[in-house]
Amino acid sequence: MRRHLSRTQLSTLIHQKKTFLCVGLDTDINKLPSTFSKTPKSVVEFNESIIEETHDLCVSYKLNLAFYEAMGEAGWDVLKRTIELLPENSFVIADAKRGDIGNTAAMYAEAFFNDLDVDAITLSPYMGKDSISPFLDYKGKWSILLGLTSNEGSKDFQMQKLQDGSYLYEQVLKTSCQWGTADNMMYVVGATQASSLSSIRKILPEHFFLVPGVGAQAGDMAEVIKNGSTNEGGLLINASRSILYASNGKDFAIKAREEAVRLKKQMESGF
Amino acid sequence: MRRHLSRTQLSTLIHQKKTFLCVGLDTDINKLPSTFSKTPKSVVEFNESIIEETHDLCVSYKLNLAFYEAMGEAGWDVLKRTIELLPENSFVIADAKRGDIGNTAAMYAEAFFNDLDVDAITLSPYMGKDSISPFLDYKGKWSILLGLTSNEGSKDFQMQKLQDGSYLYEQVLKTSCQWGTADNMMYVVGATQASSLSSIRKILPEHFFLVPGVGAQAGDMAEVIKNGSTNEGGLLINASRSILYASNGKDFAIKAREEAVRLKKQMESGF
Repeated sequence: MRRHLSRTQLSTLIHQKKTFLCVGLDTDINKLPSTFSKTPKSVVEFNESIIEETHDLCVSYKLNLAFYEAMGEAGWDVLKRTIELLPENSFVIADAKRGDIGNTAAMYAEAFFNDLDVDAITLSPYMGKDSISPFLDYKGKWSILLGLTSNEGSKDFQMQKLQDGSYLYEQVLKTSCQWGTADNMMYVVGATQASSLSSIRKILPEHFFLVPGVGAQAGDMAEVIKNGSTNEGGLLINASRSILYASNGKDFAIKAREEAVRLKKQMESGF
Repeated sequence: MRRHLSRTQLSTLIHQKKTFLCVGLDTDINKLPSTFSKTPKSVVEFNESIIEETHDLCVSYKLNLAFYEAMGEAGWDVLKRTIELLPENSFVIADAKRGDIGNTAAMYAEAFFNDLDVDAITLSPYMGKDSISPFLDYKGKWSILLGLTSNEGSKDFQMQKLQDGSYLYEQVLKTSCQWGTADNMMYVVGATQASSLSSIRKILPEHFFLVPGVGAQAGDMAEVIKNGSTNEGGLLINASRSILYASNGKDFAIKAREEAVRLKKQMESGF
């Protein structure tokens, strides 16, 4: 396996570069700048430009599987070619939100950890321990479980109260953190839930959190860092659409960089 | 859109063929019979044989995405070629268990309902309404939500008790059934949970249930049918491994048919 960024290495990288930024390559073939043709090859070229303009500003890239699967047969190849373009010292996340019974989970783990060779995959906890364990069996690889997500629908079930008065998502954190360690598990906690971040940080003092929702979803960066960061860093803060689609014109790469610089500056208070 | 099997059409098919059987094409390239080479092309050929031997015995086919993604670039093409081989009057399910925020869900819906053109996709409810709605927007297509799954891990969160004394999975059923109708939503209810099926049927008297776990996972067929079936049928009962891997030799197709015949016979009590 080529990719293997440990917790210590990730922490070092965050402190060296003074950034928590994770750039989300949720590249929609239909939203490419007007100078691009709408082909899978163009998606790779667009991703290459975004990576060139952002790699010094971020520590991580997140690839959202939906946007690649929507390209049909070509999708997996575009994913692979994009992953090959990523710098070696970046933490690569497949944002796939998978979750299925053990023998199926083992096949997904094979697809993502061996074939795509990413550092980490996002997973849904609804099906419980045996849907997550096959991913945790891969040494050096990470599982990122959904905790409290950034969307409106997080209220439907994640914020249901259990009999002991805790929220479902709190139970998910408390139970699932025993399945692995802070060296192979992280959690998705939405930036739109920044006020809950300090209580979540109390439950999990050591785990890294992947935090979506600071860009297009307008979560508060300062509050996320204040409530969520740790001495090690403890955060990967994702922005996708606000960077990728900062401009639809020829200047898309410059504008993408400007947005990444803006976000990184907001993060510097955390160091 | 080519595929569009309505609830009435599915019900008619079930009664005409006297079967609830859904054959799960969870085809593992590494478990193909010894007479096959381990190539993506062989997976299509194997699937073709299984379809030939089972199409008169079942009403539905379920394709588990994990097993196709594990083939890397070739996976999506194998999926498409398999779907092309399926009879027109069969209900085709992409077993993908996706679930993500709205704009991502819309991309998955595009991939599965337009590009792959399946009738239905399985979805995880953890992220709530806005992660499901984009799928429900496709006229004539179906969303199959995880309710109570067949695996050991279903106890971890699905069976957590909420403050009103109900289980989380019951809340998931009660809340989510309001997002669509029994004409565009179904639920996954594991056969290993057959004793819970009658209470689930009370909550959802009209919805179809996709029931995995009667084959390799050894759920009780008679109890599933007694507790879960309705006048319309109301069930799609899935078997995957017990059919696909009934034999590893030259006789794999005959043995697969024998297992499908055995399961169909068990189902005939329901008519």
